[in-house]
Amino acid sequence: MLSRNDCLELDARDPLAARREMFDLPAGVIYLDGNSLGALPRNVRPRLEAAVQNEWGRDLIKSWNTADWINLPSRVGDRIARLIGAGAGEVIAADSTSVNLFKLAAGALKARPGRKVIVTEPGNFPTDLYILQGLRALLGDVELRVVERADLAGALDENVALLLLTHVHYKTGAIHNMAALTAAAHAVGALALWDLSHSAGALAVDLNGCGADLAVGCGYKYLNGGPGAPAFLFIAKHLQADFQTPLTGWMGHAAPFAFGDDYTPAPGVLRGLCGTPAVLGLSALEASLEAFDGVDMDQVRAKSMALGDLFLDLVLEHCEGFGLGCSRDAAARGSQVALTHESGYAIMQALIARGVIGDFRAPDVLRFGFTPLYVRYVDVWDAADILSDIMARGEWRQARYHEVSAVT
Amino acid sequence: MLSRNDCLELDARDPLAARREMFDLPAGVIYLDGNSLGALPRNVRPRLEAAVQNEWGRDLIKSWNTADWINLPSRVGDRIARLIGAGAGEVIAADSTSVNLFKLAAGALKARPGRKVIVTEPGNFPTDLYILQGLRALLGDVELRVVERADLAGALDENVALLLLTHVHYKTGAIHNMAALTAAAHAVGALALWDLSHSAGALAVDLNGCGADLAVGCGYKYLNGGPGAPAFLFIAKHLQADFQTPLTGWMGHAAPFAFGDDYTPAPGVLRGLCGTPAVLGLSALEASLEAFDGVDMDQVRAKSMALGDLFLDLVLEHCEGFGLGCSRDAAARGSQVALTHESGYAIMQALIARGVIGDFRAPDVLRFGFTPLYVRYVDVWDAADILSDIMARGEWRQARYHEVSAVT
Repeated sequence: MLSRNDCLELDARDPLAARREMFDLPAGVIYLDGNSLGALPRNVRPRLEAAVQNEWGRDLIKSWNTADWINLPSRVGDRIARLIGAGAGEVIAADSTSVNLFKLAAGALKARPGRKVIVTEPGNFPTDLYILQGLRALLGDVELRVVERADLAGALDENVALLLLTHVHYKTGAIHNMAALTAAAHAVGALALWDLSHSAGALAVDLNGCGADLAVGCGYKYLNGGPGAPAFLFIAKHLQADFQTPLTGWMGHAAPFAFGDDYTPAPGVLRGLCGTPAVLGLSALEASLEAFDGVDMDQVRAKSMALGDLFLDLVLEHCEGFGLGCSRDAAARGSQVALTHESGYAIMQALIARGVIGDFRAPDVLRFGFTPLYVRYVDVWDAADILSDIMARGEWRQARYHEVSAVT
Repeated sequence: MLSRNDCLELDARDPLAARREMFDLPAGVIYLDGNSLGALPRNVRPRLEAAVQNEWGRDLIKSWNTADWINLPSRVGDRIARLIGAGAGEVIAADSTSVNLFKLAAGALKARPGRKVIVTEPGNFPTDLYILQGLRALLGDVELRVVERADLAGALDENVALLLLTHVHYKTGAIHNMAALTAAAHAVGALALWDLSHSAGALAVDLNGCGADLAVGCGYKYLNGGPGAPAFLFIAKHLQADFQTPLTGWMGHAAPFAFGDDYTPAPGVLRGLCGTPAVLGLSALEASLEAFDGVDMDQVRAKSMALGDLFLDLVLEHCEGFGLGCSRDAAARGSQVALTHESGYAIMQALIARGVIGDFRAPDVLRFGFTPLYVRYVDVWDAADILSDIMARGEWRQARYHEVSAVT
């Protein structure tokens, strides 16, 4: 078992150690919730100030040209592309993950006429399921085949238009085999849509290497774009020319400023745009992505696995009563670990009161995310130590830790 | 004809004069494009700084509760409601105008089963038409009945599910009679959806007084929420319980943090939410709306009409070669005027070079917006004077004013 000093030594040798300085982290806090909301990169504040004061305030409407607001979605998209194995011109940043899921799932049904089935799994991040249910309610003629992950490959047949999966599970962190499942979808003529919300920025994703067709993902988790940051979507190059999303807003038009009455899709991935880009949110996200400049995602992944293992080793050694809500094999999980405990909610509140921030997911999961750009080995050691102390003292039994907030 | 001194006197007596101090306007600029992008309210900067530094940076994920991020969409919506004649709990701020149009138009078709026709007019702001075309392409079984405004009432029959109109036309500023057209839609059993993008914050809108069913609108024009600000949507109280949008993202769920697999709509207008709220954009919009605190919209309207008339009086008196692209009757137009000229693009560029900012809309429209909260009578006089000078000198004939930018 590693000692605290061992952890300090690991930090001293960590090739990513300097990245932590790029974040503005609150004192006295060990933040293990970057999988829910990434921490604040230092350059966001000056970038937003410039966007507000100079671009909006001073240059006003001219900034569409002078600050190139109009190309923010593709500029930010190209930055994200590098992190997820996509090419330039395959990704845009826009709207929310949920809205982008709707665009792409509906487009996939159009791209596979005659096929009415979408395959996905239960217990997926709910918005993925809800959006498919909304699409089914709208179209009527759609079958959702919701099957456990072990049965996914068997659920694919020639009636399937789309396989929609979240690459890294939001609760368990379990990673799907993107290459194998995409190939299985293709083998029956279906498309594969990957939700990268818990993958992008956390581990090396290789969309094109896996032959993925479509993807969406979140801007405010491991990409650190800020609360409710714009999301992204990916349409593989070879699908773009014929791809039709139903959300045909003016920014996805081939000539938005011609103000013609008839919709003609923009070339390439730009047809995935809908309304006017959220300039402030995109500016914050663009700045936040600079924290990944020059970063080797393999180093990120290696450190992430080491941090997760370290936490599990320490907690399972020193604390009793926890179940394991994730794989013990780091290679099989994303950048997060999950413990289960029937009093998980109160334990998490007690941890937060001691400055260790993770989150709770019903019914009994304590979730801890390890963001290699700003979490140190010693943070993980200290967090495990505090948890162990809370359990030893029974501190979480205090009534105040059982009060439920609006957002848990 | 009013002199410059008369204008200074009007400004001195203007009950809205003090509002101008709430905006951070660039020196040397007369900004007549608030109909495209509202100017920067001074309190946006500190509010955004607090949202970034304290809420995101310091309190991180806890801010969903402590800064009440979770209620931003309804909190901002309630502020907008007052300006558009809606009640509390009828408006939320979310997504873009285009996305919200899709939600409500699709929902209207669901609410009128068996009816397949949507009536609208040609030359509407294009995204309204494009979104309907996207909905038709997705559903197949939808007829878009696109008829000139004089024929709208006649186009309504018992096959019509929805009448979708923009209250104030984006180019001509022409105002529809919301009460009469809503009543005509209701007379055949159809719903009425109003796009308030060029009305909200510019003139007193009375959705409930007119019996309107549904509405959407823009946050970055007269509401001054910043570039690409979140938009809003309105669902009349009596329709909410049965209203189904197809964009059933997790934030529109009755219990988003229960993470259940099946979608159950939230009560009331909250079912219009889709993905995670754009906290930074909503925070800016919330701050910007404070500029309307205590403002009498009838005073706004009266000044807006006076400013538009003043501009048209001066320009048509002193300049030759302009056609009128809007009504000469202030009561028949919104807070903007339109002039037409075959060299309209170059003339607008020359004006912008002289510090008078309006915009150009193809093929030949010069559009000038008058935002009563920060535009003075003397600004209008000076703008007309500069335009007259540009025309007298033929200044706009210079080659540099004919270069076309990405966004015009």
